[in-house]
Parts: sequence; C-alpha cells; structure tokens
Amino acid sequence: MLTDGPVDSPAWLTRERAAGMNRPMSSIDAVEARREAALDQLKAFLAIPSISTDPAYRDDVERCADFVLDEMRAAGLVSRRVPTEGYPLIYGEWSGAPGRPTVLFYGHYDVQPPDPLKEWRNDPFEATIEDGRIVARGATDDKGQCFAHLAGVAALLADAGELPANVKFIIEGEEESGGEAIDAFVRADRGEMIGCDAVVVSDGPMFAPGRPSIVYGLRGLAYCEIRVVGPSKDLHSGHWGGAVANPLNALAQILASLQDPVTGRVLIPGFYDAVRPLEDWEREGLRTLDFDEAAAARGLGLEEFWGDPERHVLERRWARPSLDVHGVVGGYQGEGGKTVIPSTALAKVSMRLVPDQTAAAIVAALRARVEEVAPPGVVVEVVEMNGCAPMLSPPRGPVADAVAGALEDVWGVAPVLQRHGGSIPIVSTFLEALGVPVILAGYGLPDDGPHSPNEKFEVENFVNGMKTTVRLLERLGGAG
Amino acid sequence: MLTDGPVDSPAWLTRERAAGMNRPMSSIDAVEARREAALDQLKAFLAIPSISTDPAYRDDVERCADFVLDEMRAAGLVSRRVPTEGYPLIYGEWSGAPGRPTVLFYGHYDVQPPDPLKEWRNDPFEATIEDGRIVARGATDDKGQCFAHLAGVAALLADAGELPANVKFIIEGEEESGGEAIDAFVRADRGEMIGCDAVVVSDGPMFAPGRPSIVYGLRGLAYCEIRVVGPSKDLHSGHWGGAVANPLNALAQILASLQDPVTGRVLIPGFYDAVRPLEDWEREGLRTLDFDEAAAARGLGLEEFWGDPERHVLERRWARPSLDVHGVVGGYQGEGGKTVIPSTALAKVSMRLVPDQTAAAIVAALRARVEEVAPPGVVVEVVEMNGCAPMLSPPRGPVADAVAGALEDVWGVAPVLQRHGGSIPIVSTFLEALGVPVILAGYGLPDDGPHSPNEKFEVENFVNGMKTTVRLLERLGGAG
Repeated sequence: MLTDGPVDSPAWLTRERAAGMNRPMSSIDAVEARREAALDQLKAFLAIPSISTDPAYRDDVERCADFVLDEMRAAGLVSRRVPTEGYPLIYGEWSGAPGRPTVLFYGHYDVQPPDPLKEWRNDPFEATIEDGRIVARGATDDKGQCFAHLAGVAALLADAGELPANVKFIIEGEEESGGEAIDAFVRADRGEMIGCDAVVVSDGPMFAPGRPSIVYGLRGLAYCEIRVVGPSKDLHSGHWGGAVANPLNALAQILASLQDPVTGRVLIPGFYDAVRPLEDWEREGLRTLDFDEAAAARGLGLEEFWGDPERHVLERRWARPSLDVHGVVGGYQGEGGKTVIPSTALAKVSMRLVPDQTAAAIVAALRARVEEVAPPGVVVEVVEMNGCAPMLSPPRGPVADAVAGALEDVWGVAPVLQRHGGSIPIVSTFLEALGVPVILAGYGLPDDGPHSPNEKFEVENFVNGMKTTVRLLERLGGAG
Repeated sequence: MLTDGPVDSPAWLTRERAAGMNRPMSSIDAVEARREAALDQLKAFLAIPSISTDPAYRDDVERCADFVLDEMRAAGLVSRRVPTEGYPLIYGEWSGAPGRPTVLFYGHYDVQPPDPLKEWRNDPFEATIEDGRIVARGATDDKGQCFAHLAGVAALLADAGELPANVKFIIEGEEESGGEAIDAFVRADRGEMIGCDAVVVSDGPMFAPGRPSIVYGLRGLAYCEIRVVGPSKDLHSGHWGGAVANPLNALAQILASLQDPVTGRVLIPGFYDAVRPLEDWEREGLRTLDFDEAAAARGLGLEEFWGDPERHVLERRWARPSLDVHGVVGGYQGEGGKTVIPSTALAKVSMRLVPDQTAAAIVAALRARVEEVAPPGVVVEVVEMNGCAPMLSPPRGPVADAVAGALEDVWGVAPVLQRHGGSIPIVSTFLEALGVPVILAGYGLPDDGPHSPNEKFEVENFVNGMKTTVRLLERLGGAG
C-alpha cells in the first residue's frame, strides 16, 4: 500500500462544490443503518490469519478466500473463485444496469505476518475497538479498506435491490507475497472478464485526517544487483593490498559513476530520454499547494532536501526518476575491524521510473554504463531483479470525477489530486492491460501502521469508505 | 602471525655458505637428545585451552601463564609474572655472559578459539602426532614456535650449564585478543627490563617447506570508519528517492574519490609524501627472485595482478601503501530487494602504510580528503579505529646475520630475505620503543592452518626451531 503526500484540490472540484453539487443523498442512511452489521462482518474477516507469505497459514488463506466469496454472494453479486498457480482470486459482479458505467474494485484479502507479536496490545487476529479505531492485522491493509467497498455495495443492494451503476470486484490473496498470480490473470484476461470503465483501488492513506486524496500517477521501478567478482576467495589486505583489485573499491567506483552527487542527476546515458515533463496544470498545482518544505525536511531530520535544484521537491519525488543504493554486500559488517579483500561485492540498486521510461530500456542503459566504467581487475555483471512500469492515469474523466465528488460528498472537502513516488505493480498492469483509468483513493490515515504491530483503521473511515462507494455509484448512475 | 611470500637469499649469505662457515656444531646433539622430552612438554603446553578472546577460559589462560613461568624456571631462567590490566606477561632471562649480545625472544601463550569444533579430527586440546605433524590448537600459532626457543635454551643450559650469549623472553597472553597489555608494557619499559641487542620473533611461516626466510620489514596500518549520516530514520525510496540524499550513494562518491581505479594510486593529497623508496639492493632482489607472477595470480583465481604498473607486484605488496574497503554497513543485505534509503551508511577502510608514513598523518590526510569531497545533504565523519606504524628493521647486523647463519646451519639452505605486506603492531612497538633490530624468522609452513581446524606444526620444524635457537646463541657467542 501507499503512504502519504499532498497536492491541493483541483480547481474544477472547488468550483463544483461552490455550486452546491455535492450534497449527500438519503442512501447514506442505508449505510448508517448497516454500520454495526458491517463492522461485525469486518471483524470476522479480520479474524482469519490469511498470511500469504507463510506456508503454515495456507489453509487460513484459502478459508479467507471462501469468506470473501461468501460475502460477495450474500451481498448479491454473481461470484466465483478464479484458480491460479497460487492463492485464488475472488471475483464478483453486478451488471444489472446496462448502458451505465462499470467500476472494478480491486483489493486483497491476504495480510502481513503479525510479528513482533509481543508488541501487540491485543491478539492481532481478534479485532478490538479502541477509541473508535479497529485494531487488528489487516485492519487498514487491506481488509478494512476493500471491505468498505463490498459493504457499501451490499448496503445499497439491500436497501434498493439494485445499483445505479455496474460493479465488479477482483480481490487477490498474494499482494503481500509478490502478487504474481493476479498480474498474470489481468494480462491474460485483457478485459474479457474484468473489463470496466475504470479501476478503483483503496489500499493507502488519505492526505491527512479528514482530507481525502486521489492519486493518478505512480513511479515505476527497475531493481538490479550490480555484482563484482574479484579473487576466488577472500584475501588478507596485508598480503595482497595494492596488488589485487578489491571488488568493494571497484564497486564504489561504479556506483559513483552513476550519479552527480550534487544535483542528483543520473549519469547513465539516455536515462532521461523518455521522461515526460509535467503538464502545466501539474506544475502549477505543485507550486500552489500547502506543502511546507522546511517542516517536511525537519520532520526527516534533514536541514534541507537534496537533488535537482531546478525542480520542486514534490516533482522530484513524484515525477522525476531517481537512483538509490539500498545495500552493499561483501566483506565484513561486524563490530571492529577485519582486513579482508572480499572475493565478491554486490550492490542493490533501484531506479524509480516515470512516464514514458520503461524498465527494460533503463536496465539496458544501466548495464551499458556499468560495462563502460568497470575498472580493470574485476568481472562485473548487472542482474535485473524486478521492476514495474510507471503509471499515469487520466486525472479527470467520468469515473475519476465521480470518485472526487463522492469523496467530497462524504468528507465535506475536496480531495487533493496528486501523483505519488511509489510503485504498485498491479496498478500499472491494470492500466496497461485494460486500457482504462485507475483511480487510487485510500481511506486510511498516515499513522495507521500497516505492516506494524497494533495496525488500526478508524471506524469512521471504514463507514465513510462505505458511503463513498455508495455515492460513487449514485454519481455514476446520474444522481448529482 | 604472518603468512607467505618470497625474496631470494642475500648475496653475502651465499658467499659465506660457499666459504664453509655454516657447519652445525655438536650442541645440535644436545637438542636431539632432548627432543622427546621437549615434545612432551609442548603437548602439555598445548593441552591448556588458553583462549584469550573468551572470558569463559580466564582460568585456563592464567594457568597457561603459570605453565610458561614454570618452564622458564625449570630451564634455569630468572623469571617472573608481569601483571597487566589483562593477562600477565611472562618474563625470563639468563644474563650470565656479560659483554656478549642479548637476544629478546617474543612469543604468545594464548590461542584462537578452536571453532568449528566438529571439523577437528581430534580434540584440539589433546595434541596428536599424525605423520610427523603435531595437531592441536596453538601448535604453530604460537605455542609450538615460541616453545622451540625456550626448549632450545633449556637444552643448551642442561647440556653446558651456561649459554654463549644472553637471552630474555617476553611471552604474552593477549596476542589473539588485541595485544594491548604488552604494547603498553614495552612502551613504558623502554628497555629497562627488556633491553636487548635485537628481538627475535617466530610466529609465522617459512618461505616454503625446507626454505626458511627472514622478514625485516612490515607494512603499518591505519584502519578507519567513514560514517555518513542522512535522514533521522530509514526512508522508502518510492516516497523520497530523488529528494533526500542517500547515505549509501554519498558514501560511494566518497570512496571513489580516494583512489584511481586503474592505477590503484591513492588520491588523498599528501598520501605518498613520506614514502621511502626501495633501496637498490631491494629492487634488484625483487627482480631476480623466483616469483612466478602468472602462477601466483592464477592461484588466486585472477587473470593478472592489479595496481601501479610501474612497480613490481612484490613491491606493491610489501613496500607501497594501499587502500582497501573491507565492508559497507547500512541499508539491506538480505535476499531479494528492499527499497530503503538508509538513515546511515558506514565504510570500513584501511590503509597499509610503509616507512616513513605515520598513521596519525595519514588519518588526518584522509579526513581532509573526505571533508573536501563530501557531497551535500549528508553529514560525514572519519573515525580512527586502530593502527600501527610500519616496521623496517636493519636487514643486516650482528644478530640478523647470526639468525640467517643459524637458519642455514639447520636447514642447509640460506634464508630468503624479504619484507612482508602485513602488520604486527608489537613488532613495530619493539622497534620504536627499544630502538633495536627486530628479526622475524618463522618455523611454520604456509599450510599449517593457524586459526583453522586441525592446525598443525611439523615436528621436525619444532626440533629445527630448537636447533636454530641453539645455533643462534652459539654464533652470537663467537662460535662460527
């Protein structure tokens, strides 16, 4: 899931709000009437330890898939298990509004392991309400958020017997362990089963408490290992220092050749060729939003931000490619000193990509650069580990506008419209394979603590997620 | 202890040998007569698990100190424990030959831990004779080698009731765990107790089986950590990549600025200012000795050696300073990928020093260089960890010549005369504090495996070590 980051509301939404177009409808009452029942079902969902990274929980993950299937059927969706090489995808649809738009909701029913267990105040799989927050593993990531969609649809169907627009759900069970099954499914399906007008994803936080946001762009990723091989075994630097090329020394030379340390500019030839500049409205948005750069830097313990001085900090984070070294393996990392010339050294390096860069082209360019600068005496190899394409979805359109309107209906304030610097492979795949907009609108808060002990989700945000779902469908159905 | 590396015999020794000056004396018979008794005592010495790095063996290390003291007294030396902040030094002397030279023998009675235990063929503290080799922890490093000196002296005293020259012994118990106690003692003593004409150390290998060597020079060491501090906590590169200076990226820039990757030349201003060039006879020695460069490179899995193309490989190893990165700490070293911008990064870097470089000046120069090149956005610090001075002892002189002659008397071949690229702090301290030559002449073999399972020492080399001791004293006493 994603976390944090702001841009201010788009002007059109502010104008619409001023014109009084965003008044909530009585269907909201249907959600209120079902909040306790929905919360009880969410607790049952959270009680299943669907830890996809640990084979010991295989039966629980499968049971959780069944739970989602049962909930979809109980809501009135035509539903099925979609078998994969891993855990099943659970698919459901209601298509009783021909001619009206179709929204595909994506989410995941698997969760992170709860470790470290002793830091939890309660059993991570026995959801507890504390001060209006539901505390459990998966509360915000992603059971609580994706169940808000399903419970909203269920409330509307129970109340009215029909929906104002069509919905599809695809809920996967391997988001925390690679997500390869759904990726393969979406690429193969190409819209046959999951064709839609837009994909809506809630698996991240709002901009701030009370302030929703829509994310329409993500950076991609190219993750590589740069491997350097020297002597056939570790050597003593007293015996051989100065006569044998040290793989760690060589690696430092290679890494240093990849980036200007002052401007942050990546020095790989061709690296920026495909970078699409910001649109004028995006650049304008970055300049006018309430991002306190000095305070943000202080919050990270920094005197100031770093990088290309000609770009806004948020442009650097969201819309410019970057290169980071994540770790260096080789030699000695313990206390004190050991005078080893290691046999091998390895750097973990990733590059965040932006439209229209591709991981394949960037890895090829990195490989060429490393070969160009590799010093004598060592053998160098660049190994591609994983990657995903950058994502840029149309920030306006029928569904995006309806999501923005629904968020404002429920929260009473227009969402900020932003890109984000992170990468979500399945989101890029949806955009690429289905060719429809993908809209990210999280109901979590920046302090929800996904992947941490005492993960929580605000009960009010869960209920507001249900309401947003209802209002989205009503707006798509023509209700203002 | 040291390992490996050749230079051919000095010409003067070859001439002396040709003149028939090196015929062994009958005192050798005294050694032969006592070989079994000496071996038994060595076994008793090896039976004490004097592991100085592990506090659980404190009583054993103390018991081992007592054993050495008892052996010295039994041999006829005036002996005492010298208390320190750590384990005691054991000192002994025989000074019944006024006007004759005094040799100080140095050694250590502590040993490395025996781990991994399951790889030993026998109990590491129950010495076993296998094919003429004594197998036990400490057999070659250093109990066997330093006991050869003591047993040689004991044999001569038992046989003749006196020695042809004066001897002193200083045997420490912390060589494997830092050696700080003896360093402090020698610096404080300044020759008061341990004054001598030369120090003789046997704690390393011969050039090859049957071919002894004398090491008259060692490189020094300056070991530092270069620490880079960035944000106050680890950050996600998706969120912050391109806007926050990454300490690992910055560290690579700093490390790359320290050395030319092609020539190996260190780029720290002033680094070479104090480097003393090789003497003509040393350079000539390197060129004429039987060092097969291609075979040595192949033996390390390398196509060829690396570094300054204008210097012989052995000059680069023994008489030129070097700079090696030993490890980089920070970020993620595990399997797969983690997209972290680490809060801090740290490199372990050491420089081997040669006469007349000093660790203090070189660390100051490194610090200045790092400050000069440190990129913006991070805070950088150079922390000196440890170091020692380079050592260059006069390769000729009364004691050095007597050691070379004694080695040839016993092995029947002149020793190679060489420097070595490693560093032995106490050797540098002896030279500095006592102002007398230090002569390293090991009786071990390159495959003895100090610090490894099944460490061994050739029984014949132990006995030859006793004989060399005897011949050395006889030569110093005037017997040819």
